[in-house]
Amino acid sequence: MPIVDLTHRIADGMSLFPGTPLPRITPLAWPDSDGYAEKQIQLTGHTGTHMDAPAHVFSGATTLDQWPCDRFTGSAVLVDCRDYDGPVSADCLDRIASLKSLDFILFRTGWERYWGTPHYARQGPYLSQELALALAALPLKGIGIDALSPDPIDSSTLPVHTTLLKHGILLIENLRGLDRLPSDRRFELTALPLLYADSDGAPARVIARF
Amino acid sequence: MPIVDLTHRIADGMSLFPGTPLPRITPLAWPDSDGYAEKQIQLTGHTGTHMDAPAHVFSGATTLDQWPCDRFTGSAVLVDCRDYDGPVSADCLDRIASLKSLDFILFRTGWERYWGTPHYARQGPYLSQELALALAALPLKGIGIDALSPDPIDSSTLPVHTTLLKHGILLIENLRGLDRLPSDRRFELTALPLLYADSDGAPARVIARF
Repeated sequence: MPIVDLTHRIADGMSLFPGTPLPRITPLAWPDSDGYAEKQIQLTGHTGTHMDAPAHVFSGATTLDQWPCDRFTGSAVLVDCRDYDGPVSADCLDRIASLKSLDFILFRTGWERYWGTPHYARQGPYLSQELALALAALPLKGIGIDALSPDPIDSSTLPVHTTLLKHGILLIENLRGLDRLPSDRRFELTALPLLYADSDGAPARVIARF
Repeated sequence: MPIVDLTHRIADGMSLFPGTPLPRITPLAWPDSDGYAEKQIQLTGHTGTHMDAPAHVFSGATTLDQWPCDRFTGSAVLVDCRDYDGPVSADCLDRIASLKSLDFILFRTGWERYWGTPHYARQGPYLSQELALALAALPLKGIGIDALSPDPIDSSTLPVHTTLLKHGILLIENLRGLDRLPSDRRFELTALPLLYADSDGAPARVIARF
């Protein structure tokens, strides 16, 4: 069964949401002098490929560590929306053969090609509010996108975030490798967030199997 | 398909290897004042439920980010070795019905019951060198244990680490929930480490499906 890694590596030169602190990886011990290697990792819960919980936008709402891990895996489909200019409208859902028993929808905007360049943090494709409302009406576990946010970068109201997270639909941002997924059939998605206390968001390792 | 989370949560009061810095989770933004929540996470690559790569003990050896993600999932079996006192000897492998096409072996020592107490960092069960050599001869992807280390806590030479990691058998430490796994049949293990540069070890989210 082919496995595809949909995760960006946390490393120097990675793209970040404007204002997010740079991640830092600091060696603490070395095999030659200490007998083992160990590094300190400093990053935010919204760095790199990561997942947003309702608590990311709603005070006191559910955090990722409150969800059982079956929320993080299921049946997924890719929607290629590289042909949309600006907001992706709800009619893109017509491209999905069946919505029955579907857990995740991944939106391929093509924006991942700018990862690691300043262009990645500029305004790219995003989901329309009409699409967010259509998604919120589906019994989804989550949606994913190969860009910094499903909302416009400069949005202060985050309408797509709030619409989806209000319905407990988690968001996976900064996916990569969507070109390696089948476009004509479902696959199994496993998106496992770092398990830490009160996680409004968390770096996640995301893989697909088909 | 039942899913079991085998991951400890990174939180205040968690157990740590003696000398490992305390993890720190620091709020950076709040929904009420900033419109979104975000937290800074500081931890080492060997904090909580985590995975060791060969670079943990061998200078210049393979790091986790150099491995494709199919190294992190496969067919697994549980070995209950709660009846061993001190080192777990190689004869525990006789408890496995078949070693054919097996990717992971998880050792249930029962030590996880001390998690979050000072007792967890005291000397508990560990794997004998004879067992490590027997494991190194198998085509395994990895082994796991519900304790801080498969080596004695005060070991400076880490014989089990070096024997297994020399053969590219990754180590998963501080597992939890092994009592919820089937003891009479195989299950599918998915142990996904945080993907960061030069990762000699990384916190991992570990789940089992059966």
